[in-house]
Amino acid sequence: MEKTKVAIVGMGTVGTGVARLLLDHGDRTARHAGRTLWLQKAVVRDLTKRREIDLPQGVLTDCIEEVLGDPEIRVVAHLVGGLEPARTIILRLLESGKDVVTANKALLAEHGGELFDRARALGRSIAFEASVGGGVPIITNISQCFSANQILAIRGILNGTSNFIVTQMDEGGMTYREALEAAQRLGYAEADPTMDVDGSDAAQKLAILAHLAFGARVHWRDIPRVGIEQLQARDLQYAAQLGYRVKLLASARWTDSGLELHVSPTLLKKGRPLAEVRGPYNGFAVVGDAVGDLFFHGQGAGQMPTASAVVADMIDTAVGRTGITFRTLALWSQRPAAVDLRAHEDLLGRYYLRFQVKDRPGVLGQIASLLGKHGISISSVIQEEHGSSNQPVQTVSLVIMTYDASEGASRRAVEEIERLESIDGPCVRMRVAESLHKELAR
Amino acid sequence: MEKTKVAIVGMGTVGTGVARLLLDHGDRTARHAGRTLWLQKAVVRDLTKRREIDLPQGVLTDCIEEVLGDPEIRVVAHLVGGLEPARTIILRLLESGKDVVTANKALLAEHGGELFDRARALGRSIAFEASVGGGVPIITNISQCFSANQILAIRGILNGTSNFIVTQMDEGGMTYREALEAAQRLGYAEADPTMDVDGSDAAQKLAILAHLAFGARVHWRDIPRVGIEQLQARDLQYAAQLGYRVKLLASARWTDSGLELHVSPTLLKKGRPLAEVRGPYNGFAVVGDAVGDLFFHGQGAGQMPTASAVVADMIDTAVGRTGITFRTLALWSQRPAAVDLRAHEDLLGRYYLRFQVKDRPGVLGQIASLLGKHGISISSVIQEEHGSSNQPVQTVSLVIMTYDASEGASRRAVEEIERLESIDGPCVRMRVAESLHKELAR
Repeated sequence: MEKTKVAIVGMGTVGTGVARLLLDHGDRTARHAGRTLWLQKAVVRDLTKRREIDLPQGVLTDCIEEVLGDPEIRVVAHLVGGLEPARTIILRLLESGKDVVTANKALLAEHGGELFDRARALGRSIAFEASVGGGVPIITNISQCFSANQILAIRGILNGTSNFIVTQMDEGGMTYREALEAAQRLGYAEADPTMDVDGSDAAQKLAILAHLAFGARVHWRDIPRVGIEQLQARDLQYAAQLGYRVKLLASARWTDSGLELHVSPTLLKKGRPLAEVRGPYNGFAVVGDAVGDLFFHGQGAGQMPTASAVVADMIDTAVGRTGITFRTLALWSQRPAAVDLRAHEDLLGRYYLRFQVKDRPGVLGQIASLLGKHGISISSVIQEEHGSSNQPVQTVSLVIMTYDASEGASRRAVEEIERLESIDGPCVRMRVAESLHKELAR
Repeated sequence: MEKTKVAIVGMGTVGTGVARLLLDHGDRTARHAGRTLWLQKAVVRDLTKRREIDLPQGVLTDCIEEVLGDPEIRVVAHLVGGLEPARTIILRLLESGKDVVTANKALLAEHGGELFDRARALGRSIAFEASVGGGVPIITNISQCFSANQILAIRGILNGTSNFIVTQMDEGGMTYREALEAAQRLGYAEADPTMDVDGSDAAQKLAILAHLAFGARVHWRDIPRVGIEQLQARDLQYAAQLGYRVKLLASARWTDSGLELHVSPTLLKKGRPLAEVRGPYNGFAVVGDAVGDLFFHGQGAGQMPTASAVVADMIDTAVGRTGITFRTLALWSQRPAAVDLRAHEDLLGRYYLRFQVKDRPGVLGQIASLLGKHGISISSVIQEEHGSSNQPVQTVSLVIMTYDASEGASRRAVEEIERLESIDGPCVRMRVAESLHKELAR
């Protein structure tokens, strides 16, 4: 049977999983690729580190030149995190004639244009299924399976760490802090979880999906995003009372006035597929104008789900499918993108607002008239009962669900309301998602 | 831009949808395939029939020779139903050098071996994404995206017609007959709906998936199957009372003692993704040993979802991806299949049983001891109250949920119980699905 020599650069969690699949389950790649993927080298920084896997003699090395200098190694799984030296390594791999498979979404979101242009110029390819969705093959589905469609919308829970935290707060009654610590204990969150919880990771993945689905070339930092760091358990409870769950949602919608992109904690009606994505899972709702609505659900991270996506990419690369896709799709090429972003201020939607109110009588009227001034109507109100009336300075929560309002109007209205003397502290303002069908019909 | 000439044979609902995508949205194929798919010919039986689409001059023909004899036509969408002349047409297309895309699952389930071997011998390819799941790209996902996995289980709602009928019975309170008529009125069911409602269509699709996922070569008629024709609204109500919904489920499970395959109305716990697949939708739960559990949901039939899958296949074929997949996977080749089917009698699971009981006192004891004789324990019982006690011959329903039992034991026990003097008419016996995690841990 034909043999394709491959290498792994970076033997962290995912790299170890990839080595395991290649070494223990060669029969699978043989069956699906008609050839063996032969693990020739695994490059690490520190040879002395204890590893969870026994590699055959001569495979482990701390010298990347052994990969770069071996013309028989054709496909390399690049499993190095961060921007540098990850960027330099990927460029050197391409320049030495390797096709690359990577899981590094931060690198693609930051340097995708440069890396893909370089690969194209060199006649090489970059595959990146594992960069978004972990084990959920959302990249292949969007870039290959829906090619007859104009994608109209993508909504996703793209960050398993923050979804785990929100699920713990919602179902386990934890505070944000407690849930984050639980995530760190279980290995779902890094020691520095900033990128996961502030929406950056989801924005990077959304930037990649928006490029694939709409041809948009948008830097992830330009995607308006709100994280979950400020999320409070009591808002999850009010949302539940209203029939919703809160999720960190990444959203892309194709409109006549441009592409809408944003990442934010969003209320989703209970029972809808995305609302029921729990723990470290990822979920994607995609609407195409021919195929209609599709939903994908699976493990968004973790050693073996991510390794599964990396090895599938290695097989696709070895047999030649990736090369074809890479050439025909012309991803991140320097040709101008014909896609305008819609101004975030113009985004329409319903909002969940919570105010801490000092002095109830009359204040609802004040709030309602300030909302009205900005053209915002109220759909429903929850007024918390005073717990004990002998504490005169106590504040109570006033929760308002609005009808459709623009992002800009809702923000301006809230800023004005926050200046009222009877309002204590900042307002909580979250988007409420309609069903995609309803939203697309706007 | 490069141009690939294509043709459509069969201009029914799906063929018309394919023509629409090719003619109206050539920019999409250009963007995703780096080339135009140029519709050269559309072959129909009856040129005089009124069509929903205006084709350019010279495209419509009733003469297939115009396709076979034109060497510039490289890819043909074969959208002819049934076995003959569909089989002969596909063979002639292959022999005249065309790569074929088909949506005909009955043809593949019946003649897959012959057609794929012939295509291979001729250096041609057959793509068939649209044959299973309509717009849900389950074929690509299983044959390409999960190639690093041993698939452990697939469960699916594969037949939109029967799922529409069951949903109408469950939520609309209709009888089977009324729901079937509604399905026919709305175009979800054919005038002769036999293959849809008796489980044959689902079995044909399951045979295709089992071949892709497990390498099994099983004839669809050898897959044990029960349809929905005998389903009664009151069993859906009892199931709901117990926290379940009934769905026509197709199931494949990889076990140490062989592959389990069957199609049958099955109780699924409410809230699980498959239980919530409604109306004409399809849903697939797939478990791979690396990737974990995945769930896919989308429109399982209909003009544009199916056309979306066909055109994606035409693009994949035109750019060369299909050819690679077809060669490396060696589908339906004559090499012996190393997969044994597990005897259906040995299938383990819980069961829902409903007996019509004439004379209640003592009969539960009789039933319980006969179940016990076959090693079957009772998990819960619903005894219907007598409606009016002055009708002495009235029967009441006795619903029993069992713990794990084999298919054979449950069948034999029920046959014995049905012979009791106090039992009126045949028993209703349906499988109860555990969560896949639980079932795989058996």
